[in-house]
Amino acid sequence: MKDEIIELISKKKYKSLYDLLDVMNEVDISALMTELNQEELVKVFRLLSKDKAVDVFAEMDPDDQEKLIESLTDNELQKVISEMYLDDTVDLISEMPSTVVKRILRATTPDHRREINELLKYPEDSAGSIMTTEFVELHSDMTVRDAIDDIRREAIDKETVYTCYVLDATRHLQGIVTVKDLLISDYDVVIRDIMEENIISAKTLDDQEEVAKLFDKYNFLALPVVDSENRLVGIVTVDDAIDVLQEENAEDFELMGAVIPNDETYFKTSVFKHALHRLPWLALLMISAIISGFILQKYETVFAAFPLLVILLTNITDTGGNSGTQSSTLIIRGLATDEITLKDYLRVVWKEFRIGLVCSVVLAIVNGLRVYLQYKNSAEANYAQTALPVAIIVALTMVCVVIVAKLLGASLPMLAKLVHLDPAIMATPFLTTLVDAVAVLLYFAIAARVLTVFFPAAVLG
Amino acid sequence: MKDEIIELISKKKYKSLYDLLDVMNEVDISALMTELNQEELVKVFRLLSKDKAVDVFAEMDPDDQEKLIESLTDNELQKVISEMYLDDTVDLISEMPSTVVKRILRATTPDHRREINELLKYPEDSAGSIMTTEFVELHSDMTVRDAIDDIRREAIDKETVYTCYVLDATRHLQGIVTVKDLLISDYDVVIRDIMEENIISAKTLDDQEEVAKLFDKYNFLALPVVDSENRLVGIVTVDDAIDVLQEENAEDFELMGAVIPNDETYFKTSVFKHALHRLPWLALLMISAIISGFILQKYETVFAAFPLLVILLTNITDTGGNSGTQSSTLIIRGLATDEITLKDYLRVVWKEFRIGLVCSVVLAIVNGLRVYLQYKNSAEANYAQTALPVAIIVALTMVCVVIVAKLLGASLPMLAKLVHLDPAIMATPFLTTLVDAVAVLLYFAIAARVLTVFFPAAVLG
Repeated sequence: MKDEIIELISKKKYKSLYDLLDVMNEVDISALMTELNQEELVKVFRLLSKDKAVDVFAEMDPDDQEKLIESLTDNELQKVISEMYLDDTVDLISEMPSTVVKRILRATTPDHRREINELLKYPEDSAGSIMTTEFVELHSDMTVRDAIDDIRREAIDKETVYTCYVLDATRHLQGIVTVKDLLISDYDVVIRDIMEENIISAKTLDDQEEVAKLFDKYNFLALPVVDSENRLVGIVTVDDAIDVLQEENAEDFELMGAVIPNDETYFKTSVFKHALHRLPWLALLMISAIISGFILQKYETVFAAFPLLVILLTNITDTGGNSGTQSSTLIIRGLATDEITLKDYLRVVWKEFRIGLVCSVVLAIVNGLRVYLQYKNSAEANYAQTALPVAIIVALTMVCVVIVAKLLGASLPMLAKLVHLDPAIMATPFLTTLVDAVAVLLYFAIAARVLTVFFPAAVLG
Repeated sequence: MKDEIIELISKKKYKSLYDLLDVMNEVDISALMTELNQEELVKVFRLLSKDKAVDVFAEMDPDDQEKLIESLTDNELQKVISEMYLDDTVDLISEMPSTVVKRILRATTPDHRREINELLKYPEDSAGSIMTTEFVELHSDMTVRDAIDDIRREAIDKETVYTCYVLDATRHLQGIVTVKDLLISDYDVVIRDIMEENIISAKTLDDQEEVAKLFDKYNFLALPVVDSENRLVGIVTVDDAIDVLQEENAEDFELMGAVIPNDETYFKTSVFKHALHRLPWLALLMISAIISGFILQKYETVFAAFPLLVILLTNITDTGGNSGTQSSTLIIRGLATDEITLKDYLRVVWKEFRIGLVCSVVLAIVNGLRVYLQYKNSAEANYAQTALPVAIIVALTMVCVVIVAKLLGASLPMLAKLVHLDPAIMATPFLTTLVDAVAVLLYFAIAARVLTVFFPAAVLG
């Protein structure tokens, strides 16, 4: 597709290019823009119909938007900006360098600029930052006919018209009416009689993730946002809610993968920035590894005398880490979807304890038998002599480590939530490294006791 | 809220209960139903207005739906089923035991039953399985006025009316018109002249995840679904697309956390079922731990002579595992959002190699210095004598392990995708355990060589 377009540009076949662009979706055109150079980009943009140009521009990557703005005349820029939805303009401004922002603001009317400045004041990740102020306002004493006439007049400038908001004289939200309600009611019915008065709304400073979750829960197409005095100031639409849900999911994935979250895409992030987002976690997690080292150091005489213990060390630590990861993943997910709340803590711990018991007993039997059968006839005399005690040590350690790992896996995300951190931060890597230290401690503590029974003469740490 | 409702029931204050339910959202009522017993549940349900009762029923948990159906008369059941949207009825039927299904089907008209049976034929997770067949059909020679009149007549039975579908005589999709288009056009305009003819649609057998991603990408409210002969058979609405996106995210989280995905919620799943969903992975991952064991066994003489190597073992394996997890997480996410495709493989590998190089050199310097400074004056003679070579070994191993871990972390998810497995299956636990084995191998291979240089007399494996 890209090659076809570049070829049409170079051959100056603008009519064919126009026809091609005409049948393409705006989102696909904007995705393609990324692959064009500045000159090609402007040529393609100028071939788009006015409405389509605005939609394509709003969907474009910020880097491409900047490149394009540089090449547009003030007049062209003004046309695009004046047709854009307000929330898209605000998104654009927050991504552009200050010189470009000045040009954009010069291209707006004073009224428009005032509204943009209002929206820019809301903190990042708040409901206010993702809302638009363009919505259809109705009054409760209008008839359905009046309302439909109103919508017909205003629709072209509104991002969504399907949910209309009934306001009183002080701009308090009295009710909502959907276009579907209007379409199934008689023309003479008064809005007051069909509006829904029990309204779920968000506050401007609510967290955008909480707002997005309301869309998932209640199947809304739009949600009203009110200020601290309960006046309607904007609406959030379902497409923006989906974007927030997907962003927050990406952020949880990154935190669980021990990467500091990054708004940029994978390929757009430079090698050094990637490294910078990964090194802090790796360095922090080393501290826990150093603790494991100290524990191992304490038990040096044990592992020196019984090398079979060292051979089975990673088996123990890996199983512990994986068991903990399983629990933390499900708890993080449960917290994210609000199925699990902090007051469920004891219920979760009790459940994970029992799951850990079932898993660990099975693993203890399988691993204990495996170690005994594998080493009891080993050619190496030391292995053969210690096969039985080591099998017992492995089995006992499995039970303790798996249960402890599951309890830590359940507790750490909830602890994070309690102190208002993102629970996902406690997932896999942090947990794995912590569980490792605990697993090493339990392994050698159990080993020292069991071996004293079997080999009372040996000197153990 | 629950206590209040139970109190109102027990005190037979049905008027107050009615008023309370009247202002509650359907979704909240259905969530509350889970906490009521069968008798309370039926009482609450019978107090709901007819429309609300249907919405609440559609949102209820399958267990509660079954409990409620048992208590409803055939007449009541018939009223609910006849008002439900077709896709909700199909969801209901696919969750109920066969005796309940028979009652439900008896409550439907023959036409209705035929449509339900058509929808039930689509495989799980296909576009067909999440679509509804209730949509507004228009013809291209209608005027806007005709179209609006049509919608006014039909709207009450349709889940969404905001996107209308223009069909020809053979039911092929010719175009789509939104209600917004209708509202901003003059009444006498002909549909043909305003319909959008470049339509993005799904096939009935397309994967529901791919369909849901189209909503995220194109900001649709509804998407048409066509059969193999390109006839329109149904539509998917945005609320169902959000559910699919959230389900697929949950599934990826579970796979990354080494848990076999489960449709049930955390608390609804029994302890044994939880254990069954976790044990297979734990058992499978042990195989890799056994391989690490064999490698360690081979180098027994090395770690017996240089115990400092054992003390630092978990430091190496943990850093390796965490480095690999970082890469796999970002690659799995990139594959899920289509930013990364299989043909980007070499680009990804080259990028991860450079990121690995930067991270590993920093970690090698920090760890090498730490080991040297910590042990060079150790009271234990063996540690002090081996501090320098072990520091060199740790530093060299860090470089190799981090780079290899990043390359494996990038490659395994893409390999999974190549053989049509879910890339998330390759995440954390599987990768960590594999990286452990590789890390142990590299660690002792490097150790054996470095130590031969420092201590030529020692007998090494």
